[in-house]
Amino acid sequence: MATEPYRLTASQALAQIRAGELSVEQYARSLLAHIEKRDPVVKAWEYLNPDQVIARAKELDAIPPEKRGPLHGVAIAVKDVIYTKDMPTQHGSPIYEKDAPKVDAASIIVLRQAGALLLGKTTTTEFAATVRGPKTVNPHGTTRTPGGSSSGSGAAVADFQAPIGLGTQTGGSTIRPGSFNGIYALKPTWNSISREGQKIYSLILDTLGFFARSVEDLQLMADVFDLKDDEPPNDAFAVKGARFALLKTMVWPQAGPGTQSAMAKAAELLKAHGAEVEEIGFDPELDGLPDWHWTVLHSDGRPTFLPDYRAAKDKLNEFLISHVENSKKITRAAQLEAFDNIAMARPKVDKVLGKYDAVLVPSVVDEAPEGIESTGSAAFNGLWTALHVPVVNIPGFKGPNGMPVGVSLVAPRYHDRQLLAVSKAVGDIFEAEGGWKSEL
Amino acid sequence: MATEPYRLTASQALAQIRAGELSVEQYARSLLAHIEKRDPVVKAWEYLNPDQVIARAKELDAIPPEKRGPLHGVAIAVKDVIYTKDMPTQHGSPIYEKDAPKVDAASIIVLRQAGALLLGKTTTTEFAATVRGPKTVNPHGTTRTPGGSSSGSGAAVADFQAPIGLGTQTGGSTIRPGSFNGIYALKPTWNSISREGQKIYSLILDTLGFFARSVEDLQLMADVFDLKDDEPPNDAFAVKGARFALLKTMVWPQAGPGTQSAMAKAAELLKAHGAEVEEIGFDPELDGLPDWHWTVLHSDGRPTFLPDYRAAKDKLNEFLISHVENSKKITRAAQLEAFDNIAMARPKVDKVLGKYDAVLVPSVVDEAPEGIESTGSAAFNGLWTALHVPVVNIPGFKGPNGMPVGVSLVAPRYHDRQLLAVSKAVGDIFEAEGGWKSEL
Repeated sequence: MATEPYRLTASQALAQIRAGELSVEQYARSLLAHIEKRDPVVKAWEYLNPDQVIARAKELDAIPPEKRGPLHGVAIAVKDVIYTKDMPTQHGSPIYEKDAPKVDAASIIVLRQAGALLLGKTTTTEFAATVRGPKTVNPHGTTRTPGGSSSGSGAAVADFQAPIGLGTQTGGSTIRPGSFNGIYALKPTWNSISREGQKIYSLILDTLGFFARSVEDLQLMADVFDLKDDEPPNDAFAVKGARFALLKTMVWPQAGPGTQSAMAKAAELLKAHGAEVEEIGFDPELDGLPDWHWTVLHSDGRPTFLPDYRAAKDKLNEFLISHVENSKKITRAAQLEAFDNIAMARPKVDKVLGKYDAVLVPSVVDEAPEGIESTGSAAFNGLWTALHVPVVNIPGFKGPNGMPVGVSLVAPRYHDRQLLAVSKAVGDIFEAEGGWKSEL
Repeated sequence: MATEPYRLTASQALAQIRAGELSVEQYARSLLAHIEKRDPVVKAWEYLNPDQVIARAKELDAIPPEKRGPLHGVAIAVKDVIYTKDMPTQHGSPIYEKDAPKVDAASIIVLRQAGALLLGKTTTTEFAATVRGPKTVNPHGTTRTPGGSSSGSGAAVADFQAPIGLGTQTGGSTIRPGSFNGIYALKPTWNSISREGQKIYSLILDTLGFFARSVEDLQLMADVFDLKDDEPPNDAFAVKGARFALLKTMVWPQAGPGTQSAMAKAAELLKAHGAEVEEIGFDPELDGLPDWHWTVLHSDGRPTFLPDYRAAKDKLNEFLISHVENSKKITRAAQLEAFDNIAMARPKVDKVLGKYDAVLVPSVVDEAPEGIESTGSAAFNGLWTALHVPVVNIPGFKGPNGMPVGVSLVAPRYHDRQLLAVSKAVGDIFEAEGGWKSEL
């Protein structure tokens, strides 16, 4: 029996649509039927209008083959902090309930031009800026959080409700849900994709990213968004003979048993497949990175949330109120010191990372915790977000309760394509031998 | 005879409205009558609906005094790259002709909450990113450019069509029109005001700024947008006994006779009023700043304009097409080197600037050139934009053809309030004794 269309990766669906074996409408109907079945449990969507999706699918089917874009018919779940001119954008905030600005974000313009089928808007924590979870649960364990802030996109992709999801990351909002939901996630180099039309938290940190169930699908997104390294990537990259580093970073003491075991197993598998894995540490002068990230985040939140504070303080999360009121009493001097220290760290860290094919780092503290009130800790992510480097979460491992645990590969800034090529080879190994398999 | 209301500064209008001597509607009608008379010549507006302005003025008049905001009735001209939910936002681009997203930029939310009266949208060069002038002329010499990219806001404020204008600056788009139009302009510290809802050119450079005909009015804006230094400013600042530096920077060889004479006169006046003025130079290791700014601008334009390039390349200025196509063949390595070099320069320059009450630098190459095809050079501005420091253009001098020429004061990052206090004292002297007076 042929795979039901909703289970296809984006690349697989694209191939079947191109070959004329599947219409966009058939594909959309399969996804919508699956969503209808699963949504009462997973609750990944903030807005989804099946009629609108089918109408768009029919329009796409009517486009003659020679005029079709590189994502013709590929279904996409959009985090609800990204403007879509034909759907509401509510930012997970009561202030923006039912708000629907008639404007497309830069990423949405690119996706539409490429022929993508936007399914709907996925849940997010408030303004992608708090850890208070939305209604969404983890599809692998429905009493647990899917992570955040890109909660709905992570859960939807893991649950086969969409092959691709858009996320954003300021702390760990893409890599954490990637790990918690057992899927691939890419946080590309900062500013390599326009963030126009995506709610701001911190200009120097916020990064648009992607969720997918295969590295090929992340590569498809990288193609469409014109991500380019200086050197073309080695698509024939093999783990055998490659050189990796394992970098636990200054936050390693926070790692739980799931992450400890995943990191050990990851290194072991790479070695077993013929790679060299060197354990390295950060220069102690970089020990301040997590604090510097925290300081920038809090001080950038001050101008960011001032308008909403003025307009509707009573509907604003207290964490965001504390940013505007500068309740941590961060001085401008401290803010600038953190900002400048991170800036000075970037070229240094690029140099360290550049010595290896990729560097293995933890994605999360541990498997997804119980409860959906909190979306978990970004302790392992903030520093990489601040450093602007590309990060890929690779699934394959499991935690003490059988929930997925991923590990991350990082590379120097603007080595996104090479990192994806490496991630593909590494992902094949971790998925096959890491010990965790999705039961969805 | 009392001053006609349209000639009032924002602070003066506010005082009269507060005192019950002027209604917002009377004020609005005075401005609209003046605009009606002058618009056929100056052409500062892209959108202005008098009925909408009057309706809003009446609403403001109906608010009981105890519920009025700190900008109650203050009229504001908004650059047309900033979203306003009740007016079109067209970005000076044929791609967005008649486009009207139903969303307010962060700055607009703050202004509305404060009780401002938004008059309309002012002309801009395409996406605030080219030097191809819009229809607007310089009100002081109508065969000349008002500068850009904030062309309309600069011209409108100089021509008494609005007391306050919103501008943006990525190269010199606020300070240059400030100088060309003989008015005050503030480019605050980068990211001290949210840029949400303002078209992106470069995330690390773009800065919202203000035009006004007095420093008090810039202080009013600084209050409303909650700009705060670590130390409260010295509002009793006196030029006598103060310490200034005169910094010609590495681009000084480009200065024309108007700027050369303005800088000399400015230093002379400060000395005559009892200040110390030390001529200083930049460390030669900072000589690359203009090139680094250029490299960041061109490489940031690549992701920024990709969506419009994909959607409507035929309607995109060739300069912006060249960004997307990377026609200058800027490598990622060169892009990062420029980005990192600027970052490392910021704390160094702060330290140098911090030794003085303020540092005097050129605002422009010279007075506004003939013709409106080009909005002129940003040669003297890009480096300060990249350095993130606050800059105030102070009018008062004149060029070889009697057109206004300003000079700038700069200070370390997040010393905006102190810089405004200094600018007030300095501006009083330059306006009185610099040799140029507006004849409008």
